[in-house]
Amino acid sequence: MSFIHTIEKKRDGGKLTGKEIRDFITGYVSGGIPDYQVSALLMAVYLNGCDNEEIFELTMAMAESGDIMDLKSIPGIKVDKHSTGGVGDKVTLIAAPVAAACGVPVAKMSGRGLGFTGGTLDKLEAIPGFSVSLTEDEFISQVKNTGLAIIGQTKTLAPADKLLYALRDVTGTVESIPLIASSIMSKKIAAGSDAIVLEVTHGTGAFMKDEEKACALAKIMLDIGRRAGLKMKAVITDMNEPLGHAIGNSIEVIEAIEALKGNAPPDVYEVMEVILPEIITAGGVTDSREKAWELACEAVSSGKALESFRNMIEAQHGDPDVIDDYSLFPQSPVKLEVYAVRSGYLCVSDCAGIGECVKLLGGGRVTKEQKIDLSVGLEMKIKHSGRVMKGDCLAEIYARSDHEAESAKNRFLESVNIADDEPAGNRLIYSLDD
Amino acid sequence: MSFIHTIEKKRDGGKLTGKEIRDFITGYVSGGIPDYQVSALLMAVYLNGCDNEEIFELTMAMAESGDIMDLKSIPGIKVDKHSTGGVGDKVTLIAAPVAAACGVPVAKMSGRGLGFTGGTLDKLEAIPGFSVSLTEDEFISQVKNTGLAIIGQTKTLAPADKLLYALRDVTGTVESIPLIASSIMSKKIAAGSDAIVLEVTHGTGAFMKDEEKACALAKIMLDIGRRAGLKMKAVITDMNEPLGHAIGNSIEVIEAIEALKGNAPPDVYEVMEVILPEIITAGGVTDSREKAWELACEAVSSGKALESFRNMIEAQHGDPDVIDDYSLFPQSPVKLEVYAVRSGYLCVSDCAGIGECVKLLGGGRVTKEQKIDLSVGLEMKIKHSGRVMKGDCLAEIYARSDHEAESAKNRFLESVNIADDEPAGNRLIYSLDD
Repeated sequence: MSFIHTIEKKRDGGKLTGKEIRDFITGYVSGGIPDYQVSALLMAVYLNGCDNEEIFELTMAMAESGDIMDLKSIPGIKVDKHSTGGVGDKVTLIAAPVAAACGVPVAKMSGRGLGFTGGTLDKLEAIPGFSVSLTEDEFISQVKNTGLAIIGQTKTLAPADKLLYALRDVTGTVESIPLIASSIMSKKIAAGSDAIVLEVTHGTGAFMKDEEKACALAKIMLDIGRRAGLKMKAVITDMNEPLGHAIGNSIEVIEAIEALKGNAPPDVYEVMEVILPEIITAGGVTDSREKAWELACEAVSSGKALESFRNMIEAQHGDPDVIDDYSLFPQSPVKLEVYAVRSGYLCVSDCAGIGECVKLLGGGRVTKEQKIDLSVGLEMKIKHSGRVMKGDCLAEIYARSDHEAESAKNRFLESVNIADDEPAGNRLIYSLDD
Repeated sequence: MSFIHTIEKKRDGGKLTGKEIRDFITGYVSGGIPDYQVSALLMAVYLNGCDNEEIFELTMAMAESGDIMDLKSIPGIKVDKHSTGGVGDKVTLIAAPVAAACGVPVAKMSGRGLGFTGGTLDKLEAIPGFSVSLTEDEFISQVKNTGLAIIGQTKTLAPADKLLYALRDVTGTVESIPLIASSIMSKKIAAGSDAIVLEVTHGTGAFMKDEEKACALAKIMLDIGRRAGLKMKAVITDMNEPLGHAIGNSIEVIEAIEALKGNAPPDVYEVMEVILPEIITAGGVTDSREKAWELACEAVSSGKALESFRNMIEAQHGDPDVIDDYSLFPQSPVKLEVYAVRSGYLCVSDCAGIGECVKLLGGGRVTKEQKIDLSVGLEMKIKHSGRVMKGDCLAEIYARSDHEAESAKNRFLESVNIADDEPAGNRLIYSLDD
């Protein structure tokens, strides 16, 4: 009876109280409130929105629906980083070891890929032996000893979010800023870090297609985190083309290792230049973004960042030799090159479409439970707005079979075109000052 | 997958196709579409609305989800009548026998009371022995022989509506004009009459609180019925105070019998003057509303209308002697008079509150399954805007116990007040010309 009142209040554009929101989450997790009532409320939230106070209450109720990780025993300001997802986004794999090498303790829980986006956990599992399942004690002591650990979300982390996400997925209520923001932030708050740096993506390869919405989402998440007492930073990054050249689990780790060796592709470098100063200043190593970037560059040039990555691999039972011998990564039997049929300039018209290629190759998921092939992927030889001559190799596809390689090739060619005139560069990457 | 697309389309304010709507209803009735998806769609419909074409498609899909009654074998234009509900609304009990006596075949399926509103079936069951459950053949042959039958809805009538109504009831999606209109009209269309006269109520004792919304609902239902090829009429009636004096099952039947004997209270008479010409002209007896009203008055003064009511009672196994001996109706043991504590003018401020009195007495339902006491009720001795002297009897309560009588008395006194100045009469009763 009283939950119907909550539904009706949101339906009529009202503001829910903290108690109404907590009763909703507690009731849903305990099974007292059925799915069909929750989905009606979710649609009302989708259409009528929530203010920041409601979103904060929802976030805290979801965070508190499970265990909150206690990282107090780790000295220093623990920094977490979250990306809203994209194609070829290997930022965590690079930024986390660099930050750790600069003295920022990074205790990170990551997710898996879904749809056209990849996930850090899948990428790390491309390293033979690497385990993303540590106990809480192992996780904490690894961060204490090596400064860096990246694991999967524990089962007891924000169970309300798991339930709500599954319901949103089948009721047309995924793309709601209040619901996205509370879903992300509930897990981040429950994960226990002191500071969070958000990488909020926008463009054809992101969930938020336009920059304005990405900024709105970022601002709400900043607000939620600050209400929860966390130090918050946000970086807006462009996802109108894949980040770097590699899209696919093994080859993205290789590209990340290359970046840690000082060979980052220009667009990856550009993102690092914006995000690393935020992570390093959030971690309290310095107040100056310039100084922070200097430290980051030193960590790479001195080899400390790569060392930090190696230490993490070893601590999590992976084979550290992959760093020097890429043939130790899973290899796909089929290689297919895609050639330009005319001359001009390459335009990426649908970045998500390129992410879909990896899904077609068996390297991405449609449902959360699906097993994926970590060896497959697509490497772009020419980036957006690059000059192309007829017959140039545009991309190389790594596949399990000729058939899947052809499917991916066709999907790739639907996602790009070759224009006569040089297209405008559309990369917008910046820290959100507020 | 495709149903998620339907949800998303309505969520984004799109117009659903006939196929999408039929797939929704077929899928829901067959169990292929779960409640939690349907409730998300219902909330999107509630908030984004539907145009008349969508409402028509929804209505037809619901009507066709079960059996459509075939009344073709009954000669003449069969007229059905529907009220959107109210307090003390005994219009059907009077209008149906009058119309039948004028030569209009009335084959009517009625509903039960819920919440603060009464239902024709419950009222008829106050007549000892009266059966509202006839087979289709019995129903049709009774209309052929006597011109009038009123029964409960068959189980196979619009099963989609039953499912949807139950879900709307628990998801805050009841008060949606497209959903109300399609729910009513799907049952009316499935019930098989050629013409429908709608009695759309507005005011504090109706579901539609304001006249404007009642007109909007009426217009949509007229449009649906006409698209379905039916002759349609609508009457807007006032429900800011109970209709007549009696509220409660037995006592409303007695008031209806009195009306059929020529002793209708003025407000009941006023509604008859508007609705009967619509029913009689819809039935093709005459084209002139004036002539139709003359015929109706003659049917009452000649005793033919009362005879028609008697014939229905006999055909449906009820005791026709109730017409001459009201003591044959169920009697309640406790009587309690409510007196005016000051002089002035009676104002009914909350008509639904007076309906709630009957519910408190055990004569109304909270859930559809509840058994009710047909003997209890409340009789208003003074109507809205009537002159009151301190100590006058305002109402008489018929109850099962002193305790329930007191509860009802308190609720009644919360629903009325005595003002110094004569309040404006607020009765708006008229045919909706269009």
